[in-house]
Amino acid sequence: MSAYRELHRRFDRHYLLRSSADLLEWDAQAVMPEGGGDLRAAQLGTLRLLAHEAISAPDMPELLAAAEAAPPADAWERANVAAMRRAWVHAAAVPADLVEARARVTSSCELAWRTARREDDFASLLPQLEEVVNLTRRVGEAKASVMGLSVYDALADEYEPGAREEALAPLFARLARELPPLVDAIVERQARAAPAPPLVGPFSIERQAALGRHVAERMGFDFTRGRLDVSVHPFCGGAAEDVRMTTRYDEDDFLSSVLGVVHETGHALYEMGLPRAWARQPVGHVPGMGLHESQSLLMEMQAARTPELLGYLAGAAATHLGVTLPRESLERHALRVARSLVRVDADEATYPLHVVVRFTLERALVAGDLSVKDLPGAFRDAMERVVGVRPPTDREGCLQDVHWPTGAFGYFPSYTIGAIAAAQLFAAAVAAHPEIPAELAEGDFTSLRGFAHEHVHQHGSRYDTNGVLERATGCGLDADVLIAHLRRRYLG
Amino acid sequence: MSAYRELHRRFDRHYLLRSSADLLEWDAQAVMPEGGGDLRAAQLGTLRLLAHEAISAPDMPELLAAAEAAPPADAWERANVAAMRRAWVHAAAVPADLVEARARVTSSCELAWRTARREDDFASLLPQLEEVVNLTRRVGEAKASVMGLSVYDALADEYEPGAREEALAPLFARLARELPPLVDAIVERQARAAPAPPLVGPFSIERQAALGRHVAERMGFDFTRGRLDVSVHPFCGGAAEDVRMTTRYDEDDFLSSVLGVVHETGHALYEMGLPRAWARQPVGHVPGMGLHESQSLLMEMQAARTPELLGYLAGAAATHLGVTLPRESLERHALRVARSLVRVDADEATYPLHVVVRFTLERALVAGDLSVKDLPGAFRDAMERVVGVRPPTDREGCLQDVHWPTGAFGYFPSYTIGAIAAAQLFAAAVAAHPEIPAELAEGDFTSLRGFAHEHVHQHGSRYDTNGVLERATGCGLDADVLIAHLRRRYLG
Repeated sequence: MSAYRELHRRFDRHYLLRSSADLLEWDAQAVMPEGGGDLRAAQLGTLRLLAHEAISAPDMPELLAAAEAAPPADAWERANVAAMRRAWVHAAAVPADLVEARARVTSSCELAWRTARREDDFASLLPQLEEVVNLTRRVGEAKASVMGLSVYDALADEYEPGAREEALAPLFARLARELPPLVDAIVERQARAAPAPPLVGPFSIERQAALGRHVAERMGFDFTRGRLDVSVHPFCGGAAEDVRMTTRYDEDDFLSSVLGVVHETGHALYEMGLPRAWARQPVGHVPGMGLHESQSLLMEMQAARTPELLGYLAGAAATHLGVTLPRESLERHALRVARSLVRVDADEATYPLHVVVRFTLERALVAGDLSVKDLPGAFRDAMERVVGVRPPTDREGCLQDVHWPTGAFGYFPSYTIGAIAAAQLFAAAVAAHPEIPAELAEGDFTSLRGFAHEHVHQHGSRYDTNGVLERATGCGLDADVLIAHLRRRYLG
Repeated sequence: MSAYRELHRRFDRHYLLRSSADLLEWDAQAVMPEGGGDLRAAQLGTLRLLAHEAISAPDMPELLAAAEAAPPADAWERANVAAMRRAWVHAAAVPADLVEARARVTSSCELAWRTARREDDFASLLPQLEEVVNLTRRVGEAKASVMGLSVYDALADEYEPGAREEALAPLFARLARELPPLVDAIVERQARAAPAPPLVGPFSIERQAALGRHVAERMGFDFTRGRLDVSVHPFCGGAAEDVRMTTRYDEDDFLSSVLGVVHETGHALYEMGLPRAWARQPVGHVPGMGLHESQSLLMEMQAARTPELLGYLAGAAATHLGVTLPRESLERHALRVARSLVRVDADEATYPLHVVVRFTLERALVAGDLSVKDLPGAFRDAMERVVGVRPPTDREGCLQDVHWPTGAFGYFPSYTIGAIAAAQLFAAAVAAHPEIPAELAEGDFTSLRGFAHEHVHQHGSRYDTNGVLERATGCGLDADVLIAHLRRRYLG
């Protein structure tokens, strides 16, 4: 067997184990009874460890070198070899016991977080979160020493290949500088307009679920290859042929629920559109989480907040919820900008400021400059300083996000990379297909989804995020486009 | 590390992998979208293979011999060593590639069966079912040569340790001889009574689900350690701390749904009552599937069909479904005996005859005396000969059961072993706790569940099935008790 075939076989097994673990994580978040937590943590520890072992045997360097020395003729296979090396570097850098411990501890910390968040009880989470931070730091140190990166960069590279503090820090500094005056101007302008009439709830959860399902179907979500369920923290997981997205419903606010479904469906369409032939190989997956987030934001922030799609949603709400709301009313709610407490509910103008808070604090946590016990206060201070509001509780403060309890340090920048990429991609899509707004007014996503599929989905990770953006939009990641979009939409 | 500790560690990993696969199977039956089938089959193949490898390394015979030569002081640990050997014999007898192929093929055949059953299309299932039968036969041959048993016995031993054709064949011959005249007498007697008034449907699925949930809770099902969902073929899976039971609802017949929930809850209580300290070790699991079935039938057939519990169910139906039905009406339906087509809906007097049909045909299939393509006709003929009715379709014929498509040859006898054991256990429970009927009239399962826990659940597989029955009832498996029960209940 050639070195490449042998690697292919190992990565196939790696994927089968990893996707099994992903399914067990979906189950834990969407349907598992609380008593299953200890067992689930142990199962995940074992599966993550075996997935790790599948691609970190001692002969992997030789196999990779041999595959690289005699590169396959096929361009996809060559790209796959590069993606294999990347995956191997991240896997092999971390000792097996640490992989297993990290999976076990983060799984049980995630459950503890659910309770702590519900009960606004940071103290109950502290011991487990400390353990997660310590283990994550050890993982980062192990990777950093192999990859020749800072600990934070080594962690972030797992989610965003090539992302480096030295580029992210100035990007976020710029956003922290330029967005607040922009937000002030928008808030002032919106304050002059008449207040939006309230959305008249309660809206039955069942009807909202039917509306969400309808919208997901219109967007192209294939329910024979996926599900939509409920979880505390909405996410999109599973595998390309079995995508599991979740949402949450609020009886008083159907709009945020339906926009949440639009967001997760954007992720889901990416997963469903990845190259089927490569589904179990590294090149068949996304090149980075920023590009993944760009697909959810392309739908949720760019498309769904156009007057055209909001008009369509007003009609769909009338049909499914029996409420008559003028498009303008939905627009007021959907485009309202405010310095608010919860990141996932934030508008697109203040959202990057929430990310600045996380980016700043997670670097300090990983570096040991901020101890976990001091996180609640540091979070409140940073929110006040950067976003301009002070969380009155930890529930609305440092307990709001699932990322740190699950060890996902270095993930947050991907949200802003995604927001920028989404602005670039939407502009390019509309330039290439001027019929997009008219289609959206009919709830028709054909051209937009087609553009995303052609330029993003179908490539897997044959190109990196910048490569995808350059091919699709003519330039790499460019924050100017996001800022120009915000000015045009909110102040233009 | 002592040999015993090392074995303990390996069986722990084996359990974590096996229970992960079980969860993935539950998911496939209860919630997975149809597109996920190929991936799921591959995942299960990998997990079952790794579970197998965890306990079949070449040094296992030495480790087992060492643990047996220096037996642990603790009685549970000693019983665990015996259970380990049993599990190892079954695992090590089968080559790894066969384990993986069997898991993969049965998983995809299960999905094909769902479609074939729905569409009454045996031809579409034939190629895959042939493959399953061939692989199962090879598994049986591999085990038979190691265990010194017939192929069928080697397969059946996996579900029912110690079960042998030479004992089962006369048992089923006796039932095939004695039950038909008994059934005739019951049918004749019931024909003389006025027909039962029909149950007035439709009953909303949602309300039936609430009723089912209520009854499961009254029985002691702990919803913080388990779930109740819907699947085509009801079953009880998962793990002791996370039991996943399923049912199906029929809008026209709430009674069969609620009795189905009672049945699965019987299984679930057994799982939930197994010794927690041994949850991940062989001794912590059931000694055989017959005893597992005895726990569902103890509840469904023995307890739930008493006038007392039917009275309670009539009240619960009034509360949850808003229908007023006298207890006598439920009793007529619940105790109606008829030669019917579908095993899972069969009454307790004809049920063993359905098992006779399966027992006869599956031995012929495994032996190669019956080819898979001839199964539909052979099934019809056997049903007509043994049960007395001829299925007009394969859907109501050989496609009705999930067992063969999933490779579970040798399982069916466990249903009858369970029915006999249930009759013995209920008689012993009422003798020890004469208050049981009065409690059941209140929907109170305290004493019955307590008896089952004390005499069955808490022992795991410290004793074998006969050992449990002897301790609990004073004698081993005894078909006389089942026949006497049937005479008393239906002709007494």
